[in-house]
Amino acid sequence: MAGPEDPPTILFVGQHETQRTEAVTPELLYRAQNSGYDLLTAPITTSAFQSRVLETLQEYVKMLNASSEQKDVPLPLLNPLSPEDTNLVPLDSNSSLIAVTSPWIDLASHDPLIAHVSRQVFNLEVAYAAFVGINNILIHGPISSSGTMQYARTLLEGLGMGPYISINVLLPMSGELEQDISADGIHLSELTRPEYAEEVEDVEEGEGETEVYDAWETWNTIRTVCNYSTKLSIALELPRQLPAVNLQSRWYSEPIRLLPLPRTSFWRNGKGFPVLSKQHQQYLTQFLRLRFPPWVLLSDVGAVPSLSNEAAARASSEPTPAEAAADSNEQPLDLIQHLKYMRHLQQSQPTRPPIERFGQGYQDYMQSPLQPLTDNLESITYEVFEKDPVKYEWYERAIALALKDLREKLGEQRKVVVAVVGAGRGPLVTRALQASRSTGIGIQCYAVEKNPNAHVLLQHRNATDPLWNKQVTVVKSDMRTWSGPPTMGGKSGKVDILVSELLGSFADNELSPECLDGVQHVLDPNHGINIPQSYSAHLTPIASPKLHGDLLGRASTDLNMTMAEKWELPYVVMLHQFDYLSTVQPSAEDPRTPVVQEAWSFWHPISTNILDLAKSRADGHIDAGGHLGGDGTNEHNSRSCKVTFRCAHRGVCHGIGGYFETVLYSSPTSGQKIELSTNPVTMADKSKDMISWFPIFFPLKTPIYVPDDAEMEVSMWRQTDDRKAWYEWIVDVYIRMGSRRMKLGGSDLHSCRRNGCLM
Amino acid sequence: MAGPEDPPTILFVGQHETQRTEAVTPELLYRAQNSGYDLLTAPITTSAFQSRVLETLQEYVKMLNASSEQKDVPLPLLNPLSPEDTNLVPLDSNSSLIAVTSPWIDLASHDPLIAHVSRQVFNLEVAYAAFVGINNILIHGPISSSGTMQYARTLLEGLGMGPYISINVLLPMSGELEQDISADGIHLSELTRPEYAEEVEDVEEGEGETEVYDAWETWNTIRTVCNYSTKLSIALELPRQLPAVNLQSRWYSEPIRLLPLPRTSFWRNGKGFPVLSKQHQQYLTQFLRLRFPPWVLLSDVGAVPSLSNEAAARASSEPTPAEAAADSNEQPLDLIQHLKYMRHLQQSQPTRPPIERFGQGYQDYMQSPLQPLTDNLESITYEVFEKDPVKYEWYERAIALALKDLREKLGEQRKVVVAVVGAGRGPLVTRALQASRSTGIGIQCYAVEKNPNAHVLLQHRNATDPLWNKQVTVVKSDMRTWSGPPTMGGKSGKVDILVSELLGSFADNELSPECLDGVQHVLDPNHGINIPQSYSAHLTPIASPKLHGDLLGRASTDLNMTMAEKWELPYVVMLHQFDYLSTVQPSAEDPRTPVVQEAWSFWHPISTNILDLAKSRADGHIDAGGHLGGDGTNEHNSRSCKVTFRCAHRGVCHGIGGYFETVLYSSPTSGQKIELSTNPVTMADKSKDMISWFPIFFPLKTPIYVPDDAEMEVSMWRQTDDRKAWYEWIVDVYIRMGSRRMKLGGSDLHSCRRNGCLM
Repeated sequence: MAGPEDPPTILFVGQHETQRTEAVTPELLYRAQNSGYDLLTAPITTSAFQSRVLETLQEYVKMLNASSEQKDVPLPLLNPLSPEDTNLVPLDSNSSLIAVTSPWIDLASHDPLIAHVSRQVFNLEVAYAAFVGINNILIHGPISSSGTMQYARTLLEGLGMGPYISINVLLPMSGELEQDISADGIHLSELTRPEYAEEVEDVEEGEGETEVYDAWETWNTIRTVCNYSTKLSIALELPRQLPAVNLQSRWYSEPIRLLPLPRTSFWRNGKGFPVLSKQHQQYLTQFLRLRFPPWVLLSDVGAVPSLSNEAAARASSEPTPAEAAADSNEQPLDLIQHLKYMRHLQQSQPTRPPIERFGQGYQDYMQSPLQPLTDNLESITYEVFEKDPVKYEWYERAIALALKDLREKLGEQRKVVVAVVGAGRGPLVTRALQASRSTGIGIQCYAVEKNPNAHVLLQHRNATDPLWNKQVTVVKSDMRTWSGPPTMGGKSGKVDILVSELLGSFADNELSPECLDGVQHVLDPNHGINIPQSYSAHLTPIASPKLHGDLLGRASTDLNMTMAEKWELPYVVMLHQFDYLSTVQPSAEDPRTPVVQEAWSFWHPISTNILDLAKSRADGHIDAGGHLGGDGTNEHNSRSCKVTFRCAHRGVCHGIGGYFETVLYSSPTSGQKIELSTNPVTMADKSKDMISWFPIFFPLKTPIYVPDDAEMEVSMWRQTDDRKAWYEWIVDVYIRMGSRRMKLGGSDLHSCRRNGCLM
Repeated sequence: MAGPEDPPTILFVGQHETQRTEAVTPELLYRAQNSGYDLLTAPITTSAFQSRVLETLQEYVKMLNASSEQKDVPLPLLNPLSPEDTNLVPLDSNSSLIAVTSPWIDLASHDPLIAHVSRQVFNLEVAYAAFVGINNILIHGPISSSGTMQYARTLLEGLGMGPYISINVLLPMSGELEQDISADGIHLSELTRPEYAEEVEDVEEGEGETEVYDAWETWNTIRTVCNYSTKLSIALELPRQLPAVNLQSRWYSEPIRLLPLPRTSFWRNGKGFPVLSKQHQQYLTQFLRLRFPPWVLLSDVGAVPSLSNEAAARASSEPTPAEAAADSNEQPLDLIQHLKYMRHLQQSQPTRPPIERFGQGYQDYMQSPLQPLTDNLESITYEVFEKDPVKYEWYERAIALALKDLREKLGEQRKVVVAVVGAGRGPLVTRALQASRSTGIGIQCYAVEKNPNAHVLLQHRNATDPLWNKQVTVVKSDMRTWSGPPTMGGKSGKVDILVSELLGSFADNELSPECLDGVQHVLDPNHGINIPQSYSAHLTPIASPKLHGDLLGRASTDLNMTMAEKWELPYVVMLHQFDYLSTVQPSAEDPRTPVVQEAWSFWHPISTNILDLAKSRADGHIDAGGHLGGDGTNEHNSRSCKVTFRCAHRGVCHGIGGYFETVLYSSPTSGQKIELSTNPVTMADKSKDMISWFPIFFPLKTPIYVPDDAEMEVSMWRQTDDRKAWYEWIVDVYIRMGSRRMKLGGSDLHSCRRNGCLM
């Protein structure tokens, strides 16, 4: 297959030690990079600093106990950092470091004293890291979930402490972290005074499913308080046993910047080398296909090796004898076994599926849908579409099938009139000619195109392409005003097969119904065939923090659009870092199949009664008025739906994913049916590896929280007036309590009326 | 008591007939107004129009049955209105009419045919009503709740059909309407084709409480789809038996424009005259106290009477003999019995409570909180505050109590030094002098004021007011920089009692803590008393569609503020048309007592340790840095809280209502405590009829739906840096399912940091 090459896999690997003993110096970084690491973590402060903080606390508690009125004793203040408190200094090489805040603080503490001191430590550390030029901060997630709001509020403040600061919150996928990065020494949470000890929630333990989403819930609170800041990410620790696939895909949809892999997450293979489980490998592969893959942090897998002799020689012209000795004697090979394994995985990543190769760089990138009716496409746009390995092949099969059916039905030996409307650069003309050749049924071929530039190319191709052989009639016209083939010699002057490729990501969103209505007058009313014959729009609710965050941060570049209107538009986007909210029962083969439901469908040709009525309304012969203004000449292309989705697991809905299916041709004689589909449920069956369409995304201005076992009700409209078509959408959430259905919330009504597709 | 007069009660009464037999002509309107009605309802179309629509439908169904392919038959179109279809023509007097759309349509139908025809009827009628200058439309609510979304979408379109159109949706308080305005004739919903008949939801009937909110739920969906349009209101039919008080107050909080009172809602008194129940009268009284009270529609209580002879003579110079005969013979008195009763109620409305009289015209009007520290107040503002019948009286009692305690404690005969800081025009100086006179304890009085204009007045008053008697030392100074009384003759040079009135609607929101910290240096450190001694902020979640709609429609008038920032500010507002979401168990006396919880508190004087530390930070002697920037000199005035509210009945939270309580003085000797409160739970006990403060309102950008039996968790912060103080707030909703607490949704974090109070 022709198409883009599989791009090389990019994987940054960092080395992390929860109790780093060596100071992170340029020399250590040099050694790490020399060993093959890209990054190192560095604690911002030293144990001397921790001792000073603990002393301050002890003194304070003494003062408190000595005082009769506790409220009269001001909370203790920490002095600024002194040189003994930190090993970091400003260096160019700091860009390869990730600064780790002190793991022994408790920002979420209910004890005002502990929270106050923790906040001071956090602020001092973040400010200092930013000062020395380390903008990637790693911080332990909140210790108690009931203090998450307070924790998040402190992080929000940290994000504002410098323009380039990026905070990564270390979280487990569920339950507890494998590696407790604060294993050693005193943790401030242990100093919580009894009167502030947390009340234990009267929640039953071990309710299975409920508990597994707790870490995600914590994250959801943090990012909500921080308003989906793009500077806030997750350091997601991968445990030895990955949780259920639904929780994997939930985390996958979140902004993971770091993937800490503790030593315990690795297995040993037969030869004693560290390896990851198949599940881990597959999960990692998913991450590596993101536009910006997370960085792996190998945690506590071994110290940074000393320099080899050779490298040492490069680093310093004269290694001390001691160094040289260390190089040869104390360098056990296995210090970088884990790293080597990661590099091996990097090299041996499986080939990406065609649509991912094709869409490389477009993952989760939101584009406005094409408006081919008002804009003339450029050749490169056509070229991209023509690369599809499936679509045109299927069109050829559909045309061949239709030709055979027609020949049988008409029983004549006359040439079949085939018109390609919206011919572009002619790929469907070629396919029609090939179908004619393969079936031995002669055709009279028309290529109708409104784009004057493409028209030039079509004429050129007709003159030079041996298959076209000057037999194609090239017509420059909007299909809706084309008068059709000339009537001559007893021929009907009508088209037998009308071929078009006007479908958008949501089927009708590029006005295929309106265009095909407009050209139907050239189709033979008795036996004329439309390819495609019918198409339908499909949808499913999705979670996509990435898209929501991008839209939040997006300034309106279009001067005709207000900031609010960016939420009232659908976007064409290769959905990647997202999660389905409604899935069918997990099966072993495919545990994450979404529930995708049909919104509505269109078919062609439509009844002439309907077209005649529309024309009468347009001509003013019937003065009825359109429901949404105008004459209502296009009201028959309005649609609406209300579909309900069951959602087993809690999540946040950021919008609706949209897809389409189309029947190119369904043969009444052979029963054969040629179909295309971007619906994730049916695509593999109907048109595997088709690359021409990305899904469409209808955003929600305000994300809606969806609890466990909820129902989402999506109401959607395709609205029309005389000049344009547009969509409207609104989402409500319900749960059932016993036999009662209870509303939990709902979105506003969204509408792209102002920015709808123009006819 | 001095104070504003009770304003006259305004009550517009309309006459409505569900089956109006007479055409609504200027003559009929004249007769109605002559009888005492203000308004008339008028059907937009005639029965001839209905017959035409039914014919069109019948013809269509015939065509459909004759067709092999039903989808080939286009949906039927209605012709424009013809003169037989309506009795309305453009007239100046039309402004006194309410146009009634045809009650026999079904906009919510699942049958596309019925919905299509209904929409056309609706569109034709609304457009025509607007054309003839009747902008108030009355329309029957949706017939099936499952079609409410579709119904609402059609109304949204109707609202856009003219700039002045206002649509009123007729709804019952719960269950069914008493009067079915479509009692006669065929209703289109009866023509629903079997294939579109609605599936019956598998919901148990008669679950009591749940069902009673269904009509409100319907309304909530409609107004959400219509985005809280101020042009969309409710015509709320008052049934014979009013529902529970919680549902009454829910509806009360909604935009009721019309109050239809069917004949059946009236009782007959002993003399056979129609009267309303006590509950109805009380509910009506509530409505009549709104800034814009709804109009009452008397429905089917009797035809519009003919003109009396005298009136007829005024109307036409020569009444025909027939008219004259009709006047005397066929005019039964009881035709306007109901109207007369309504006028009687209007005349006999109970007196409003003081705060309502005082706040007349300010109901639900949002003001930005005062910033007395940065702005100099005008005399009129002071004057308004000085009218309070309770506040200053309580201050006088507190000062008297403190004087007695001090005299006892000090045991000296020296004068007590009293300083009023922020003296304004001097009301507290007067009260201090009165307390001195009543207790017989001599005082040395200081009046400190930074406003140069008020300073002039204070000097004038000292020179002329006999009570002041030139004994008050007037100081022009910001209290924070005042050096205090001069030290002389063995006196301490300190203030014994420091009196201030710096509290805002949320206690600390006008920077009382910061100001009193700043002046504490003048207070005697051993026995000095602050009046007030302490104060606390209190809150409760509320539903207020009115405030939400007003904010939505509010353009940002402040050039320094973006459109989004209007949601990130608290407002001082006399809450009126709102509902409490969390209430205590209903009792017979007061079934709607809200749950109001304390957010935090402040007390004065504070420990000098705390002030000394703050000063060291400000002076740079301690270099700790503030958590939110600056030196952190005001960190001791930061506060935060997380409070949980149980909400029994479903609703929508639009924000948080805020109140305060303060202890002016609590005597350690007598145990007496002088308090002020705006907390609706304690106000009646602590300071009934106090008018100086309206509540504060913290809005939510996106309203949160709260289901039955939910918990709301409000997190709130009072944040400070060196230059200002501001609030932050965020709300989460949970329900308990068995022992599990499940999150249902939450708001964004709101913050007025950018527009906080400057120090």
